[in-house]
Amino acid sequence: MPTSPFESDPVFPLHKGGKIEIRPTLRVRDGEGLALAYTPGVGRVSLAIAADPSLADHYTWRSNVVAVVTDGTAVLGLGNLGPAAALPVMEGKALLFKEFGGVDAVPICLSTTDSDEIVETVARIAPSFGGINLEDISSPRCFEIERRLQELLDIPVFHDDQHGTAIVVLAALRNAARVTGRELGDLRVVVSGAGAAGVAVTHMLLGAGIGEIAVGDSKGIVHLGRGDLSEVKQALAAVTNVGGLSGSIEQALAGADVFIGVSAGTVSEDAVASMAPKSCVFALANPEPEVHPAVARRHAAVVATGRSDFPNQINNVLAFPGVFKGALSVGATRITEGMKLAAAMALADVVLDRLDADHVIPSVFDPFVAPTVAAAVAKAARAEGIARR
Amino acid sequence: MPTSPFESDPVFPLHKGGKIEIRPTLRVRDGEGLALAYTPGVGRVSLAIAADPSLADHYTWRSNVVAVVTDGTAVLGLGNLGPAAALPVMEGKALLFKEFGGVDAVPICLSTTDSDEIVETVARIAPSFGGINLEDISSPRCFEIERRLQELLDIPVFHDDQHGTAIVVLAALRNAARVTGRELGDLRVVVSGAGAAGVAVTHMLLGAGIGEIAVGDSKGIVHLGRGDLSEVKQALAAVTNVGGLSGSIEQALAGADVFIGVSAGTVSEDAVASMAPKSCVFALANPEPEVHPAVARRHAAVVATGRSDFPNQINNVLAFPGVFKGALSVGATRITEGMKLAAAMALADVVLDRLDADHVIPSVFDPFVAPTVAAAVAKAARAEGIARR
Repeated sequence: MPTSPFESDPVFPLHKGGKIEIRPTLRVRDGEGLALAYTPGVGRVSLAIAADPSLADHYTWRSNVVAVVTDGTAVLGLGNLGPAAALPVMEGKALLFKEFGGVDAVPICLSTTDSDEIVETVARIAPSFGGINLEDISSPRCFEIERRLQELLDIPVFHDDQHGTAIVVLAALRNAARVTGRELGDLRVVVSGAGAAGVAVTHMLLGAGIGEIAVGDSKGIVHLGRGDLSEVKQALAAVTNVGGLSGSIEQALAGADVFIGVSAGTVSEDAVASMAPKSCVFALANPEPEVHPAVARRHAAVVATGRSDFPNQINNVLAFPGVFKGALSVGATRITEGMKLAAAMALADVVLDRLDADHVIPSVFDPFVAPTVAAAVAKAARAEGIARR
Repeated sequence: MPTSPFESDPVFPLHKGGKIEIRPTLRVRDGEGLALAYTPGVGRVSLAIAADPSLADHYTWRSNVVAVVTDGTAVLGLGNLGPAAALPVMEGKALLFKEFGGVDAVPICLSTTDSDEIVETVARIAPSFGGINLEDISSPRCFEIERRLQELLDIPVFHDDQHGTAIVVLAALRNAARVTGRELGDLRVVVSGAGAAGVAVTHMLLGAGIGEIAVGDSKGIVHLGRGDLSEVKQALAAVTNVGGLSGSIEQALAGADVFIGVSAGTVSEDAVASMAPKSCVFALANPEPEVHPAVARRHAAVVATGRSDFPNQINNVLAFPGVFKGALSVGATRITEGMKLAAAMALADVVLDRLDADHVIPSVFDPFVAPTVAAAVAKAARAEGIARR
């Protein structure tokens, strides 16, 4: 391979040749082995599956393999970089799926950004997969694509930028409430950002019983009086902002208990200072949080960010490996609100024995995280009657 | 997993859970490792690829990964079993790709059998792959699908049931000619079967300089006088049968030098006996050859089958791992006739030092096969100016 000008950055040598590979799980040593693993022996497995397609869950890798699908329109926080540029991220995701959850994951980067074509394409490749993890697909297309795919398929379809983030945020907030001696339902929350993460976080917090949430976008608080709302934001306005707020996000923060930033915006120290006592600030914008955590900590009781160099890192890797492992292990046909809530509560409980303001969420390297989340998700799927095995 | 009635057959326990897995090629041990392998570090790789998409060949697994794509319409010799039943075969193929060629391969089983939709779908998932191996797609759709995909994509598209078979047949025939003291160009050949393999074998033999080939289907020898020919068979009739034969395949065998069976038909001992002296019989139908090899050997100088329990096994695994490894290693944009011919000749030469009537083709476990084929294919791609690196 030619030398690249990027070789001085340690990240490039590390990614050379990619980060994942396919490995056989059995060896073919001789003609007899070949005749069992491949032709003619494999034909008997094919005939059995043709007679009973559910046997594919036992005699192929399908029941443990997820397609990590992107169209490259919202790669990390970097925007529409296209499918080739998204591939290193999808490979990284596949690496984390296996490393943390024991789930096989295959990057699928699409050369189309048309919602209909994405839905069509993913539905057509679905027979070889046990689940679909949508990734880095821009908002608001991501909502429709996920909904339509889940309607078409009887395997889990999960847009991680939405639900992975929402699960980890809810887990951290559950523990932040514990640390500050409150109930989730008593909190007044301001969410900054009405994209994939903001919408999903809001719905998840509503599902967890938080009644008072105001959501803001770049134009300020989302409310039904605004004439510029997309369909998704209109729906959001209909179920949030019971206080009838309008104006800027910073104005809405006065007296609020919780700030959750999942946008590129910024929040001033004065706005944080205007929040209620024992406030919680989750400044999750990456790489630059909406407010520096050290500044936020002067006023807030609990501060979380997306970064590994500050306490309380909100990282999706705390959720998606265990969520899929749990769903796949019981053959769940989808990932329901109940399963996501169960994942969040189980994730929160992992850190219960060492809970304090700087440990409202476990480390991503805590080996109990994924198994605990998986067990909770599997149990919830069984309880909801959507487990096939 | 529940016990299956199939558990008494050793093939089923062997296939439990599938035959391949995804493995990370690097470990993420701490926050620093995570920040390099995934966010935020991976973002720098994505930005570099967005600026120069060819860098994806260096900094992702793309340049060594092939999609093994099927619609399940022609699974082995078993027919249209559907995508789920095709999956164990595609996994087996992926296992062989890695084991024999060091190539990563991902099974993609499609829920559509519509040619337009297959072409569309494969083209849309292509950005994450370095090559497309089409597999077990029924004839004549396979021809059009391959042609259209290769026109759309700048990565190799290769229908293995066609070209893999053709490469190995040509290699074996090259050596059979050597063993019997003749030149390829002097042989008169009868091909039984005008499906994927028959058509590809015929074109490959024509390309290798064999001028006199008659092809038969279930209705007898294909010739322009027949009113029942499909478009593909009309094209075949136009370039074969210079001798103007008609009637049955067995009639055509009288005085012929070579029989190549790639159909489910049978050939009688009398028909084999009617062939020219030093004849070659390649009875490749699986699992039952067109004529039993022991019967054929009474009359023919060289006999080959598709089976591992007789001499001269014609097995695609002798070709596809090396062909793709060679094409991928130089970033070839397609797999040309010249590259296939080079693969066949290199494959034939692997066994030159121990050539006899029972060894016209190497063992599939000969470790020099794939590297030799790969080197020849890479060299041919460079010579044709279609290598990108």
